[in-house]
Amino acid sequence: MSDEAVEHARALLHALGLDETVDPELRTAPERFTELLKTMFSGVTDEPPVLSTFPVEATDTSSESRPDNDAALEPVVLLDLPFQSMCVHHLVPMFGSIDVAYVPRDRIVGFGSIGRAIDFVCARPQVQERIVTQLADLIERHLEPEGLLVRCRARQLCMEMRGAKKRGTLVSTASRGSLRSGERRLEIMRQFAQADSAL
Amino acid sequence: MSDEAVEHARALLHALGLDETVDPELRTAPERFTELLKTMFSGVTDEPPVLSTFPVEATDTSSESRPDNDAALEPVVLLDLPFQSMCVHHLVPMFGSIDVAYVPRDRIVGFGSIGRAIDFVCARPQVQERIVTQLADLIERHLEPEGLLVRCRARQLCMEMRGAKKRGTLVSTASRGSLRSGERRLEIMRQFAQADSAL
Amino acid sequence: MSDEAVEHARALLHALGLDETVDPELRTAPERFTELLKTMFSGVTDEPPVLSTFPVEATDTSSESRPDNDAALEPVVLLDLPFQSMCVHHLVPMFGSIDVAYVPRDRIVGFGSIGRAIDFVCARPQVQERIVTQLADLIERHLEPEGLLVRCRARQLCMEMRGAKKRGTLVSTASRGSLRSGERRLEIMRQFAQADSAL
Amino acid sequence: MSDEAVEHARALLHALGLDETVDPELRTAPERFTELLKTMFSGVTDEPPVLSTFPVEATDTSSESRPDNDAALEPVVLLDLPFQSMCVHHLVPMFGSIDVAYVPRDRIVGFGSIGRAIDFVCARPQVQERIVTQLADLIERHLEPEGLLVRCRARQLCMEMRGAKKRGTLVSTASRGSLRSGERRLEIMRQFAQADSAL
Amino acid sequence: MSDEAVEHARALLHALGLDETVDPELRTAPERFTELLKTMFSGVTDEPPVLSTFPVEATDTSSESRPDNDAALEPVVLLDLPFQSMCVHHLVPMFGSIDVAYVPRDRIVGFGSIGRAIDFVCARPQVQERIVTQLADLIERHLEPEGLLVRCRARQLCMEMRGAKKRGTLVSTASRGSLRSGERRLEIMRQFAQADSAL
Amino acid sequence: MSDEAVEHARALLHALGLDETVDPELRTAPERFTELLKTMFSGVTDEPPVLSTFPVEATDTSSESRPDNDAALEPVVLLDLPFQSMCVHHLVPMFGSIDVAYVPRDRIVGFGSIGRAIDFVCARPQVQERIVTQLADLIERHLEPEGLLVRCRARQLCMEMRGAKKRGTLVSTASRGSLRSGERRLEIMRQFAQADSAL
Amino acid sequence: MSDEAVEHARALLHALGLDETVDPELRTAPERFTELLKTMFSGVTDEPPVLSTFPVEATDTSSESRPDNDAALEPVVLLDLPFQSMCVHHLVPMFGSIDVAYVPRDRIVGFGSIGRAIDFVCARPQVQERIVTQLADLIERHLEPEGLLVRCRARQLCMEMRGAKKRGTLVSTASRGSLRSGERRLEIMRQFAQADSAL
Amino acid sequence: MSDEAVEHARALLHALGLDETVDPELRTAPERFTELLKTMFSGVTDEPPVLSTFPVEATDTSSESRPDNDAALEPVVLLDLPFQSMCVHHLVPMFGSIDVAYVPRDRIVGFGSIGRAIDFVCARPQVQERIVTQLADLIERHLEPEGLLVRCRARQLCMEMRGAKKRGTLVSTASRGSLRSGERRLEIMRQFAQADSAL
Amino acid sequence: MSDEAVEHARALLHALGLDETVDPELRTAPERFTELLKTMFSGVTDEPPVLSTFPVEATDTSSESRPDNDAALEPVVLLDLPFQSMCVHHLVPMFGSIDVAYVPRDRIVGFGSIGRAIDFVCARPQVQERIVTQLADLIERHLEPEGLLVRCRARQLCMEMRGAKKRGTLVSTASRGSLRSGERRLEIMRQFAQADSAL
Amino acid sequence: MSDEAVEHARALLHALGLDETVDPELRTAPERFTELLKTMFSGVTDEPPVLSTFPVEATDTSSESRPDNDAALEPVVLLDLPFQSMCVHHLVPMFGSIDVAYVPRDRIVGFGSIGRAIDFVCARPQVQERIVTQLADLIERHLEPEGLLVRCRARQLCMEMRGAKKRGTLVSTASRGSLRSGERRLEIMRQFAQADSAL
Repeated sequence: MSDEAVEHARALLHALGLDETVDPELRTAPERFTELLKTMFSGVTDEPPVLSTFPVEATDTSSESRPDNDAALEPVVLLDLPFQSMCVHHLVPMFGSIDVAYVPRDRIVGFGSIGRAIDFVCARPQVQERIVTQLADLIERHLEPEGLLVRCRARQLCMEMRGAKKRGTLVSTASRGSLRSGERRLEIMRQFAQADSAL
Repeated sequence: MSDEAVEHARALLHALGLDETVDPELRTAPERFTELLKTMFSGVTDEPPVLSTFPVEATDTSSESRPDNDAALEPVVLLDLPFQSMCVHHLVPMFGSIDVAYVPRDRIVGFGSIGRAIDFVCARPQVQERIVTQLADLIERHLEPEGLLVRCRARQLCMEMRGAKKRGTLVSTASRGSLRSGERRLEIMRQFAQADSAL
Repeated sequence: MSDEAVEHARALLHALGLDETVDPELRTAPERFTELLKTMFSGVTDEPPVLSTFPVEATDTSSESRPDNDAALEPVVLLDLPFQSMCVHHLVPMFGSIDVAYVPRDRIVGFGSIGRAIDFVCARPQVQERIVTQLADLIERHLEPEGLLVRCRARQLCMEMRGAKKRGTLVSTASRGSLRSGERRLEIMRQFAQADSAL
Repeated sequence: MSDEAVEHARALLHALGLDETVDPELRTAPERFTELLKTMFSGVTDEPPVLSTFPVEATDTSSESRPDNDAALEPVVLLDLPFQSMCVHHLVPMFGSIDVAYVPRDRIVGFGSIGRAIDFVCARPQVQERIVTQLADLIERHLEPEGLLVRCRARQLCMEMRGAKKRGTLVSTASRGSLRSGERRLEIMRQFAQADSAL
Repeated sequence: MSDEAVEHARALLHALGLDETVDPELRTAPERFTELLKTMFSGVTDEPPVLSTFPVEATDTSSESRPDNDAALEPVVLLDLPFQSMCVHHLVPMFGSIDVAYVPRDRIVGFGSIGRAIDFVCARPQVQERIVTQLADLIERHLEPEGLLVRCRARQLCMEMRGAKKRGTLVSTASRGSLRSGERRLEIMRQFAQADSAL
Repeated sequence: MSDEAVEHARALLHALGLDETVDPELRTAPERFTELLKTMFSGVTDEPPVLSTFPVEATDTSSESRPDNDAALEPVVLLDLPFQSMCVHHLVPMFGSIDVAYVPRDRIVGFGSIGRAIDFVCARPQVQERIVTQLADLIERHLEPEGLLVRCRARQLCMEMRGAKKRGTLVSTASRGSLRSGERRLEIMRQFAQADSAL
Repeated sequence: MSDEAVEHARALLHALGLDETVDPELRTAPERFTELLKTMFSGVTDEPPVLSTFPVEATDTSSESRPDNDAALEPVVLLDLPFQSMCVHHLVPMFGSIDVAYVPRDRIVGFGSIGRAIDFVCARPQVQERIVTQLADLIERHLEPEGLLVRCRARQLCMEMRGAKKRGTLVSTASRGSLRSGERRLEIMRQFAQADSAL
Repeated sequence: MSDEAVEHARALLHALGLDETVDPELRTAPERFTELLKTMFSGVTDEPPVLSTFPVEATDTSSESRPDNDAALEPVVLLDLPFQSMCVHHLVPMFGSIDVAYVPRDRIVGFGSIGRAIDFVCARPQVQERIVTQLADLIERHLEPEGLLVRCRARQLCMEMRGAKKRGTLVSTASRGSLRSGERRLEIMRQFAQADSAL
Repeated sequence: MSDEAVEHARALLHALGLDETVDPELRTAPERFTELLKTMFSGVTDEPPVLSTFPVEATDTSSESRPDNDAALEPVVLLDLPFQSMCVHHLVPMFGSIDVAYVPRDRIVGFGSIGRAIDFVCARPQVQERIVTQLADLIERHLEPEGLLVRCRARQLCMEMRGAKKRGTLVSTASRGSLRSGERRLEIMRQFAQADSAL
Repeated sequence: MSDEAVEHARALLHALGLDETVDPELRTAPERFTELLKTMFSGVTDEPPVLSTFPVEATDTSSESRPDNDAALEPVVLLDLPFQSMCVHHLVPMFGSIDVAYVPRDRIVGFGSIGRAIDFVCARPQVQERIVTQLADLIERHLEPEGLLVRCRARQLCMEMRGAKKRGTLVSTASRGSLRSGERRLEIMRQFAQADSAL
């Protein structure tokens, strides 16, 4: 498969008038470009990762007092985790950061597992609105949280490099259960915003 | 049309006592000034852009769970997109940034289309309060979102260069549907504010 | 009137042991000081400015959809407009910035007019709490908005230069109609705060 | 009284193995240390200051419209006024800033008076939680406001210099009347936070 | 016990191909590493600290007015206290800052005691979600506050150094009583966020 | 002259297809635009301002020690003074800030005079490189300083609104005498840079 | 040429296992991707732009005093102009900002021309070190300045998205004539650094 | 003297058309204004303070190694000390911060003494250029340092409130001995700049 | 080898009184800890990476003008590249960022190669001073630059978690050839400093 | 000794009119105050710490190339290490941060040792100028570096709480050998300044 891909990359450049007679540095571009695309799209054929979860009792010794007060279910929040992906429409990069928060039902999830879930979801051509829903789906399947909120802030180079060529920040969110609205969502959204770094 | 416009620009400068005997650099000013005005007002004769929209199912795999919870309709947010326009009263520039957020009903819109919509609306003599309503109208017509919020932050040089000569930031907003008020609007307004850059 | 004022300024300095035998630079101080006071108090004898207002329909093409949803009345916000005035009790400067927001009923007001209104109200000996109410009164009279919010942030040199000599920021507000309380006021107050510059 | 205090200060140092044979610079330390303590504790024997208040009508020309809308009582806010005091338990400094906000009933208070009230309350050995309640009591007695909110942010050197030796910021608040809770308190708290300087 | 621990540390390094023939600086590593682990895990065998508390009347002279207004119970807030601990799963450091707020019932707690409580809880292999609940339990036991909120912001080196290798900030919270939800929690959460320093 | 200018402004707009049938707000635009141009170009017919200077001895009591050490001539520095002007080529605004530093020979200049000199030089169609040399010439003529350095940082809307449409900051400088190079210039340039505010 | 390019793009995606059966959004990707590449590489077949230059006398009235002091040749500085290009090796974006400074010999260059020169040089597959030298060559050819300094700060997505995947900032410079070294270069480099914005 | 001063202040206001029939709050203004002026000018009749100095050996145990290396004379630097004064020409406030650095010869000076020296010099009508030289003279007389550098950054309200009404920062410096120029001055100037706070 | 390492890790924990009877979460800690150490020390057995270099002529078209001016050799600068390593003495993490600058002789190096070189050097127990020299050696060997400067800013958890427990930033540098000192080094060091991010 | 010290502390408070009849919280103040002083002065009777040093060859593999170029001796820099001490004259805290840099001769020093040296020097009544020289002496004795630079930035509460009551930052430095002056000192001083945190 690889050789063929490289050949098409080379032919594509050629058709655009770009070859090593124009610029000798282009000689290895087809190989490098193909290699980079493979890395960026590696998730298409991968199995989704298994997220490690733990029973919530192990870490929350106050759980016996919960039955009488739903509001005591405290969220776990992961802020400003970097991600990179490729735009499904223009095949140029999008990148930024992802925030995840969940209110546990009976299990918590390892922090590292969230990182792996992000990398899996982003390792394919993507739309930003789809990244958050796919990530929410993946986390929900393994963790079955009481509430879940996923936010993605990104720069989309397809928006910066063509058409109106505007730089801006795009934000998409996905939510499940108790974090679809209400006071706790408000509180978490503020924590997300507080931790926003420059993209 | 062009030659005539240039001649009037030259006569206007003349009437103000400004010509190349005063400053030789003014010689080409009428042409350049007219050219710049044409660029800034190009939208007067243009057709409004067609915004590319996509069915929301394609990207939101969680849509089947929505019927039972309206609050799950998650907004899509575009932050801090730059714009420039000319004040309809004084013909001097205003500039700043525009934020757009919408809660989709059944379609989403391409990010680049929002950028083109901004450029179209601003390519004519404008009033800041009108930019947001015209932009909201244009987006609403193509996207028919459940809710829509448009905010424009601007510096108005007519306010900075004449009269009380005060520098400040002017903010105007337009809203439609579910984002006219309520918790989701509050959440989005905070995201807008968080991303404010220096104008 | 002027000569007399200068003579009293000179006599005042004299009585404080300050004259040009002590410091030759004081020679023209009475004239300059009197001149500055006149500038700062010019509004005492001026007529209040007429604010230019425009019918709201001209700029808001979405007004036909409003009857069914009060919340759609969007505020117009002016942020961080600088001002200077003199403290009525100690005749030393106060300065800072003023924010104005209003929800239009049927007219909007030119941005420059707000600037002129600020300068008029501040051109007399003042108390910070009075600046906001007088400014609100003046705007209300011409604009009859549905809601109005005026905020003034200031440094008061009389507080910094005498007594406990504390530097701090003083904030006073005035409100009318729908912006006396509620969600929209909250939203605007956050926009005010977001734009606070160093005084 | 003074001589005796100096002698005990000298004896205290001696008992700790500190005298001018160890370090000649310690020679005048007992006098200087005693002097500094007297300054810091001068309020113990002082009379509380009289706060200058003014009738609210003088400054708020819109008061006739108030009867029909309680929410129109606008707060007066003083932000980030510096203070210093000594910890009653360890006799080392605490310092930081104090914010005061009140909703007037029928009188307002001079800004300088709040500064004097702060200095009086802090001129004795203190506990941070007590500073805010004593300051609130003092202001309430003279001003009888409709609502009152006092916040104190401080660094406590006793926490930084001994035990777990943690640097942090401590915040205590006191409230009266309408500012004990509700939307207006929320609004003011945000203004307090917005103006926080580095301690 | 110590000698044995050092020997196993040395053997562990050996098994990983690391000894002083590879790098002479590794010679004392087993001793130093073991020593460091002992310091980090010293709390495993320590008794929990006794927190010094004081009756609330001593400091709050306004307590007589409280019976008629529950909302007057003002929180005490400690912001941005640093902590360090070791991840129970990977034995690498986590570190960051802890915020504590409580609404007193009838006692307040010394600021230094909170610092000691943090150090005790963190002096063992930990999970971030457990730090906040154990700290909340410890404070609750001694102080019996009306409401309690503990927040921990941390960097987890196990997440940064392995797997998806993402740097981010993790936030966990624990709450008790009146701070499990509601307006006062919102107010405190904003104070926490306002004081966030770089980790 | 005025009526004629307004008529040409109206004709210019007309030729560009812009009149009140297209947008009723354009009705008064010719008058307002002409008025604004007159304000911006008022300096073309004005006399240059006379700068108030004072003998340096009056303020520098250490001047007797100077003969033996040239380096003691200390600069006076004015940082970040705002300005506005119109581009001579495109008749759109440029704006930013101007820094001035001089090493006095035998006179110093009033701070206010520098402000007036800036406003005079900018009240005509300009090129940024010319603003600094004309300002330097004007100051030099009145003050005859030992050294002089003028720096102008500006945004040029003609660069932002047409062609490559790039936002950036343009800096031009002019120098005279001892500040053309050397250690003192380096020191002042650093002070200039330190005070740069957002344009 | 275009149709052929699109076909190769489609075949390339196919060879990587990416087609619309996997993701329907990929259907138009070949066209869009090809279109974007054409935009990014448009400079390959374009003629270099002609830079507009002006005689230096027109703007610098102090030029007669120059013969006696070389150091008086003041630089013109353009700070933080944004650029975008594509990496010649991996065909992914690089972007950032470019600073240009020159000391004029007998001509100055229009600010807009520098912007066009940047866009021309970047509209082809590039290496960052080559962007600065090609830009310097282009400017030097038209302007023949006494000294020239070009700096490019960029993020290279090929470095962020593959291999060691490190985010960082890359800086390359090119210089000519008097700005190859010395005090003036030092001064300009500091101005460059002072204006660095987040990339 | 006092009564007479108050009467002239009252007459001055009268002559400007300002009395309690216009604004009842003006009733006590003459007394308060006179009182404030007396505070601000208290230094006119005061004796200059005696600065406490100490032999340098007491604190610098490395002084024996100095004879062989002049460069070892390390500066003592005081950064960002606040000051307030009144402009001698317009009798309105100037304020800002003062930095002091000196290279000791054989004595050092108490930090508090520098603070007292600043307050003495500023307690009279002043010119900013004179504040630094008078302060330098006063310090030099008592300390006889090897080198001395005094810098004053100020806002001048006379420049902000009249004429061109420009806000900016003014900087004046005074130097003596080894800090008139050279590498050590450069190093200190950078420390000064690094500590600049907002005025 | 692996099994043995895990067993020693388990025994080490045991000897410290840490096993799953104390905390069930410790059960898998020996495996995870051993795994993490292997990752961090993977470079001990790896071959050093081959850095890709390119002839400098390919990218620098101005090389023909160089022979007459050594200073024209422009540096290539890589700023703020993140790294992580383990302290050779205490086996706890150190982390931070590395800056690299070189003046090319006849070749340049791919940006990605520098990233790989950093990861290789850090993948073993390290001392910060050694990281920079080993990295410099590795780059020098492949690139033979005219000058080379490597800087490493790090936090050392062994310093933060034990002994005096001080948080701070440690900086070490290594240089070769023309960047051992002089004006170009000064220029680069300033660029390094300008880009310092929070560690 | 202890009991006696406590008794004198109690008598001192008594003589100042402070005892538990005035404020019951003062009851344990004498014990706590005495305890805190003992902690702060613990270094008076301690032995100076032994600093761990290592031969420089171990870490710097490039040392063989040094003989031919002195400038290659690269500094090791420790930035922004916190300290606390007590003012020898007023017995109130001073605190801030210390920077250390040295150019090694043949040994380097462990980072933790510098931390211990700082704590030792500060554990006694101090003068800021003395802290840096004593620290420099201690480091020099053990390390014999080629050059050494120690900088201390501090807030002095004796300056903030008495007399002119000015808050500011005080900086003192000590240097040895090659870092007494010159280019390398300049470079290090800039690194110090770059890392200055808020005190």
